[in-house]
Amino acid sequence: MTEKEIVVLRLGHRPERDKRITTHVGLTARALGADGMILASDDPKIEENIKEIAPRWGGEFFIKNDANAMEEINNWKKVGGKVCHLSMYGINLPDAVPELKKESKLMFIVGAEKVPGEIYEVSDWNVAVGNQPHSEVAALAIALDRIADTDPLLKTFDNAELTVIPMEKGKKVVHDNELIEKNKQNKV
Amino acid sequence: MTEKEIVVLRLGHRPERDKRITTHVGLTARALGADGMILASDDPKIEENIKEIAPRWGGEFFIKNDANAMEEINNWKKVGGKVCHLSMYGINLPDAVPELKKESKLMFIVGAEKVPGEIYEVSDWNVAVGNQPHSEVAALAIALDRIADTDPLLKTFDNAELTVIPMEKGKKVVHDNELIEKNKQNKV
Repeated sequence: MTEKEIVVLRLGHRPERDKRITTHVGLTARALGADGMILASDDPKIEENIKEIAPRWGGEFFIKNDANAMEEINNWKKVGGKVCHLSMYGINLPDAVPELKKESKLMFIVGAEKVPGEIYEVSDWNVAVGNQPHSEVAALAIALDRIADTDPLLKTFDNAELTVIPMEKGKKVVHDNELIEKNKQNKV
Repeated sequence: MTEKEIVVLRLGHRPERDKRITTHVGLTARALGADGMILASDDPKIEENIKEIAPRWGGEFFIKNDANAMEEINNWKKVGGKVCHLSMYGINLPDAVPELKKESKLMFIVGAEKVPGEIYEVSDWNVAVGNQPHSEVAALAIALDRIADTDPLLKTFDNAELTVIPMEKGKKVVHDNELIEKNKQNKV
């Protein structure tokens, strides 16, 4: 899907409180070219919400629910992946971008409120996306945007049932009826 | 605060459902250099949440609660402001950036779910931040980041009680005790 392999690890999700924010983290990850999101909490609804998007809007994007954060991080590192924790603490994103761009396997960690100290220890980079109280959705968006080799907003998604046609006013969405029909039959 | 005057108009906020997303919209607007957020719904809690941030972390950021969206847009236009509606429809952000950069008074509109057709009509630009289902928090973050003249992540905020010191591991926050004391006395 992308040349870089990028996964997002979402920590500290509380199903009642963070449902919409975590869905936004997942949508942002997908729209900006990440390959999937790992959720270090048990909330199958997030998985359902985001899994509905892929066949309609194309591309492939995985969600792994109820994962163990440290296990995921360790396994990722074992296969040569690097880990970048995003928050309002750490080195400034602009200082980290040149190094992050060189990596081919990156995990971005985004937390909710308190992130355990061991995450700061185990991360290859602790990166501040601005030193201000911020949004993890915004932090992830800016990081993915800045490390991309080609403009992620111009990315196309394969096998999309629906495609938006850029235009000045109004909405134009093209439906691939053949694919919609095929996907329906595969569901039955 | 910034040379450009930037406000964010938040549409379609539903207090029960969108509390956290709208707070993230506000935090993102502030952290990336906007001057304030206008909320076209009545939710004084959003105002409270975000107003707590400014004295602690510095800078000035206004929140206007319970505003009438069309009135705000019309008043903004009367004083020479331009209006840019962000969504997944419209022209691509990269195509709009050169024009947006030239403007000195910009209003960014971000909606929740359905945005009324009149918003598409009244906006000077309808801009797609990617043609994919997305997050309005991410859309705003990327737009503010891309139109900025200097890196918004390196921006400093005046009169901050708390300042984060960039470092590789851990958190270091400097407290301006004199200012904290002064602000406390002003509250009494």
